[in-house]
Amino acid sequence: MNESNRKNCNHNQQDIEKICHDFHSTIEFIGKRWMGVIIHHLLKGPKRFSELAESIPGISDRLLTERLRELEKEGLIIKKVLVPSQKKVEYELTPAGKQLETVFGTILQWIKQRD
Amino acid sequence: MNESNRKNCNHNQQDIEKICHDFHSTIEFIGKRWMGVIIHHLLKGPKRFSELAESIPGISDRLLTERLRELEKEGLIIKKVLVPSQKKVEYELTPAGKQLETVFGTILQWIKQRD
Repeated sequence: MNESNRKNCNHNQQDIEKICHDFHSTIEFIGKRWMGVIIHHLLKGPKRFSELAESIPGISDRLLTERLRELEKEGLIIKKVLVPSQKKVEYELTPAGKQLETVFGTILQWIKQRD
Repeated sequence: MNESNRKNCNHNQQDIEKICHDFHSTIEFIGKRWMGVIIHHLLKGPKRFSELAESIPGISDRLLTERLRELEKEGLIIKKVLVPSQKKVEYELTPAGKQLETVFGTILQWIKQRD
């Protein structure tokens, strides 16, 4: 590879490295255990903690709490307080969270085509 | 949840479990280290081992060999012998492998929207 290619490649290299990093951290995030099915249920609309826990048999309250915290930290859900006095809250996908529907749709479409 | 819901839910439950399993194994597979960038390069056309190794600085020959074997086992690439006597081979995405372009495209699009 001659010098100018290498420089050009370096610039590309930094872009590729950022794209790779973002790609892998996205894949890792949505690939976390139960994350996909939690987002799948939230794509149907806002949900209370108990509703999520019941619709995902097998998930512990501790892990559901952790996943919801991670989703909130990433800006993919918001926590809405329904009745302050009774600590009633609801979890809702943000626009960025809702846009995961296309990602999930294409992955599930790809799987279907291979079945 | 009454009995018929539970039965209906069981049926749904098995579907959901299969979908979840397939979703997670797909995410895990494409999320493996270097897998994304190898597929990214193969989406540009068939490549020799040396071409892939050079365009992915940092990957070891051992890991590249392993990833290509995994892709072949999953039916996502084929290995074409170019010159038998010189063991010249080329790796090419199968139709299923090429269809990953849409999955990658939507993931990268989702990332871009969040940047």
